[in-house]
Amino acid sequence: MIPLELHPDRLFPADPSTRALARSLYATVRDLPIVSPHGHTDPQWYADDAPFADPSALFIVPDHYVFRMLYSQGVSLDALGVPRGDGRRSGAYDPRAIWRLFAERYHLFRGTPTRLWLDHAFHTAFGIDERLTAESADRYYDRIDACLHEHAFRPRALFERFNIEVIATTESPLDSLPHHRKLRDCDWTGRVVTAYRPDPVVDPQFEGFRQNVARLGELANEDTATWGGYLAAHRARRAFFKSLGATSTDHGHPTARTLDLAPAQCQRLLDRALAGTIGADEAESFRAQVLTEMARMSVDDGLVMQIHPGSFRNHNSKVFREFGRDKGADIPMRTDYVEALKPLLDRVGNEPKLTLILFTLDETAYARELAPLAGHYPALKLGPPWWFHDSFQGMLRFLEQTIETAGFANTAGFNDDTRAFLSIPARHDVWRRVACRFLATSVVEHRFGEDEAMELAPALARDLAKSAYRL
Amino acid sequence: MIPLELHPDRLFPADPSTRALARSLYATVRDLPIVSPHGHTDPQWYADDAPFADPSALFIVPDHYVFRMLYSQGVSLDALGVPRGDGRRSGAYDPRAIWRLFAERYHLFRGTPTRLWLDHAFHTAFGIDERLTAESADRYYDRIDACLHEHAFRPRALFERFNIEVIATTESPLDSLPHHRKLRDCDWTGRVVTAYRPDPVVDPQFEGFRQNVARLGELANEDTATWGGYLAAHRARRAFFKSLGATSTDHGHPTARTLDLAPAQCQRLLDRALAGTIGADEAESFRAQVLTEMARMSVDDGLVMQIHPGSFRNHNSKVFREFGRDKGADIPMRTDYVEALKPLLDRVGNEPKLTLILFTLDETAYARELAPLAGHYPALKLGPPWWFHDSFQGMLRFLEQTIETAGFANTAGFNDDTRAFLSIPARHDVWRRVACRFLATSVVEHRFGEDEAMELAPALARDLAKSAYRL
Amino acid sequence: MIPLELHPDRLFPADPSTRALARSLYATVRDLPIVSPHGHTDPQWYADDAPFADPSALFIVPDHYVFRMLYSQGVSLDALGVPRGDGRRSGAYDPRAIWRLFAERYHLFRGTPTRLWLDHAFHTAFGIDERLTAESADRYYDRIDACLHEHAFRPRALFERFNIEVIATTESPLDSLPHHRKLRDCDWTGRVVTAYRPDPVVDPQFEGFRQNVARLGELANEDTATWGGYLAAHRARRAFFKSLGATSTDHGHPTARTLDLAPAQCQRLLDRALAGTIGADEAESFRAQVLTEMARMSVDDGLVMQIHPGSFRNHNSKVFREFGRDKGADIPMRTDYVEALKPLLDRVGNEPKLTLILFTLDETAYARELAPLAGHYPALKLGPPWWFHDSFQGMLRFLEQTIETAGFANTAGFNDDTRAFLSIPARHDVWRRVACRFLATSVVEHRFGEDEAMELAPALARDLAKSAYRL
Repeated sequence: MIPLELHPDRLFPADPSTRALARSLYATVRDLPIVSPHGHTDPQWYADDAPFADPSALFIVPDHYVFRMLYSQGVSLDALGVPRGDGRRSGAYDPRAIWRLFAERYHLFRGTPTRLWLDHAFHTAFGIDERLTAESADRYYDRIDACLHEHAFRPRALFERFNIEVIATTESPLDSLPHHRKLRDCDWTGRVVTAYRPDPVVDPQFEGFRQNVARLGELANEDTATWGGYLAAHRARRAFFKSLGATSTDHGHPTARTLDLAPAQCQRLLDRALAGTIGADEAESFRAQVLTEMARMSVDDGLVMQIHPGSFRNHNSKVFREFGRDKGADIPMRTDYVEALKPLLDRVGNEPKLTLILFTLDETAYARELAPLAGHYPALKLGPPWWFHDSFQGMLRFLEQTIETAGFANTAGFNDDTRAFLSIPARHDVWRRVACRFLATSVVEHRFGEDEAMELAPALARDLAKSAYRL
Repeated sequence: MIPLELHPDRLFPADPSTRALARSLYATVRDLPIVSPHGHTDPQWYADDAPFADPSALFIVPDHYVFRMLYSQGVSLDALGVPRGDGRRSGAYDPRAIWRLFAERYHLFRGTPTRLWLDHAFHTAFGIDERLTAESADRYYDRIDACLHEHAFRPRALFERFNIEVIATTESPLDSLPHHRKLRDCDWTGRVVTAYRPDPVVDPQFEGFRQNVARLGELANEDTATWGGYLAAHRARRAFFKSLGATSTDHGHPTARTLDLAPAQCQRLLDRALAGTIGADEAESFRAQVLTEMARMSVDDGLVMQIHPGSFRNHNSKVFREFGRDKGADIPMRTDYVEALKPLLDRVGNEPKLTLILFTLDETAYARELAPLAGHYPALKLGPPWWFHDSFQGMLRFLEQTIETAGFANTAGFNDDTRAFLSIPARHDVWRRVACRFLATSVVEHRFGEDEAMELAPALARDLAKSAYRL
Repeated sequence: MIPLELHPDRLFPADPSTRALARSLYATVRDLPIVSPHGHTDPQWYADDAPFADPSALFIVPDHYVFRMLYSQGVSLDALGVPRGDGRRSGAYDPRAIWRLFAERYHLFRGTPTRLWLDHAFHTAFGIDERLTAESADRYYDRIDACLHEHAFRPRALFERFNIEVIATTESPLDSLPHHRKLRDCDWTGRVVTAYRPDPVVDPQFEGFRQNVARLGELANEDTATWGGYLAAHRARRAFFKSLGATSTDHGHPTARTLDLAPAQCQRLLDRALAGTIGADEAESFRAQVLTEMARMSVDDGLVMQIHPGSFRNHNSKVFREFGRDKGADIPMRTDYVEALKPLLDRVGNEPKLTLILFTLDETAYARELAPLAGHYPALKLGPPWWFHDSFQGMLRFLEQTIETAGFANTAGFNDDTRAFLSIPARHDVWRRVACRFLATSVVEHRFGEDEAMELAPALARDLAKSAYRL
């Protein structure tokens, strides 16, 4: 048996004086409640509070970080129990067999953030103190499986144990938000809010766009075949989302392109999008125009706007054809912000009432574009390192490449952006550790004072996120 | 009262052996005279030696690093006393009120180079030993204001106290250089030279281009409506600038694009530029052609050529409309050098008599393009980290990403490129510290010897700049 | 005399605990045999085992890393004995004079990997214990020259002394591989294999493309004027290369562009390429199509495929005109992988039988594109840092920017890719040191366990390369 320990100084630098200060700073933020202002956990978990099904269903089958690595090393998605695009599996579902496949290959995750998150969850949530290997696979499975039958491992109990102050989920405008309504009306006090993610009715290339827009119109009682009606429907749905706690919108476009066109042009683009005759460039223009509209609506209704651009979705045609979206085959692309955002910023960039949080998968934009933009425009803030960059090295690069130009106050703290519920405490812990490491290094190198680092640590750990997202 | 100290080991790494060596290396260069071969201080300061007006006029109102951060956090430029585009202010100028606004928000600069520069100036120039806060704001104001009335705080006295060996300012070809002439003819021995920055007569999209070119013709007694006359006028003004000490030219183009067109094509572009009918692509071609012409003239007259490309100027339309240029809204863009410079390099890249110093705001070019180019072409050298990258982390990245391929000898040392006079000693001090840190780390990791680092430290601190700029 | 020592802790970090662990890890891999699965040494060296001619012919004249730096600082290629494009020299060849020129300027290499490699070779291969300077130049020359007359410094003896387990050279399909045949038929047991590098018959812009393709047809007894014949000829030559030990192909294209066109389109492109009427875009399409064909053939014949894209070859027109290819004037360019590779990956990216190793000169692709691609597609692996990035800092950046997303198992270990035989032990030593440093830092910061680092060290040093290249 190989022990599994979480060293109290993990992710801190080796230098003793820096490590000691990082430890002191971290001690002040370790137990702060978690503010999770953006993510993709399933609201039904909190609404129904049903047990998680089994260890593989919890840790492997839905986690694209996990199965993409296994797939890259020759394990088929079928063998991992990933459902086909039609929702069915190609064979019988055998969660213990899946777990063993995973355990035999756990060494593949060495050096990855997934390893840090999983070890953290295994140890802190399930009290496991040996490393996952082929040999320990069954003991792991049995332990986790037994726990999942206990009340203490139901979603709400974990939510409380994780000390989550507030969590946001992400829903489509077409969602009637039944789980959030249920949560509103029940007596559980955990704070779960929604966020408005309109990609299915904003991206003409989204599957079922025409039907989606029609459905949007029905839900909002607007004629979404007209540009005015389409915008009015957005306004109505945003208000509905606000009524269920939403403080933000989110936009996952291929690029950060924005436009500010005349209404007649907008109508023409909408017509072609609904007719299914829109070309790729016009689809880009449509999305670009809607981003600017969303920003204008945010000025009015106060919803914080997020843009998550730059992912080439479903890059692997075969995997997409057989298994559908979100199967670990999204690949980042070079992303421009300077030209792309100008139309939107010309319209609302100087609005103090707007908060627009920018994310990137293209780290070259950190120092070159994003920090200079956020260090100037009142409306802009920088989102934390995202997705592949939500990692130890990714966080260091983010801090080292943005703070000098943007300062701390133009960042939006941390968010975990995850659909893996068990990883949430681990992800915030990694961020808190890396942030304290960065602060400690700055102090030891006399870039600012220890008293200032003591103020910045809780800001980075919780307060910046809470205020940027108006929570 | 929170003390303000400048720790003698600031910016050195925590490891004791590396820190000790960095300290030893730094001790050999700390007091070297400052060579400032490129910058934007006002020559009138040195010519007239009048007192600076007040603390806010010295530190806030003209410093886009300072007011861009405050603006990003919701402070209006009007409230900071920044003049409108017409030169007037929207309200009464109250420097103490401006100072208080700034002092209340001084914490925003934590982690930025501006904070390092300001603390250095407050402490070393004004002897202040408490941190700037809302509480200390008035004491700061009074102390600085009192100093500014003393002779010891006049520009020439500061120039001498700062131990400036030579400083270059930057002027337009349309400038008759009255301050440099006054300096030449007076008995003060401080060395202040000009530099030739012809953007107003090179960029067809510059405000007043046509009038500027006409004025260029008058000054040089050439017909600048002809391509030959236009070039001859440049030659004449370069000679005039040389006569007032210039050793360099500077070019702040949107891109690094160069061309090598036939004279007839050049004439056509000039015609359209003067007629105001030139399109964006042709304007780019015109600028590109002039860069190549400037390089050819540099082969003849020995002026060192600098290219500072890649800034999207005046990105914020509203701020530009209301306040004009240089208001903290210039944003870096991706910048190509490999294709862009080829026409120029095909013409003069192998000329040992040419020195062309390349700068970038796109750090991705350091290791990929700039170091390989400078490590091959005899004419090329690398300018130091510039603007947003004139910072602790920016300098480390520059050294780590260029030296392995370009070596030290293909760099041009440091320049501060600033209009903030008080920041000059601080900026050179940061560079000297970071350079010594880099050298110390290299020695402690046995990448080269301590004796070699001892030779490289003064080269990086002063000598490379002095020789690259032919000072 | 300045001593030349290779410190046993070189390239390890200063922190004592990290250094100690790096030293322990390194001790386990220092003496492992060298697997050199990709490079450009001359097979004739091993086949004929003739002595190297003289110190300058060994270290300076053929090494573009060396003469590019000297050229950038004003030394002419003629003075360095570099032959003109016609193979002749402009003056008499005086190797001692060349050596002195080099020795006088050896300080230019401070901070470069070339300095590390040369010092390593001088000290370990030739037992020299003083630094190279103008003063020691002749002693160096005499020592090395004397050694080269000894049997112990013949290529095979060095091969054995260097503890090379296997080395790959790189040849054109038009090469009849006489040296590899000689090696196969002789009784020397050193393992030297070839690799299939078809650029001369794949790139329509290669000098002599039409004749090359005709010659390919003759060698393979196929009609290479037809698309089918052209492909069949490739298959035949690949089989021939396999028979002489080849386990890989290599492709040095300007971009990573791939296509998957219909046969009729392919024939049209081939027709135009052979007619010499092909444009630049079509030439790109031809190369792109052939990459996909090569990948399909690799699925069939098991040859590991390598793509080395992104170099602007022969950027300096004058140097190319006078001295020809490979004269230190190749400059990296921005390189896209996400769009470029999609056609190939759509065809064969999910093939577990294919291994496609990707290289880059554009480090921005590491975290953004390459690690996500390799961390998903079964067919993809990441090649080590290449060319300008085969350096201390380059290796650190590679490890820090790829492992978190791709893991160690999706990399292909190290290869030296060199034509400088004497640098091979040094290059592998730098890699082993930097890899151990990275592992030690990870352990000391508790990112994974020391037992895991002990497993990863030999994998990075040898085993990953050996298995990825099927050696």
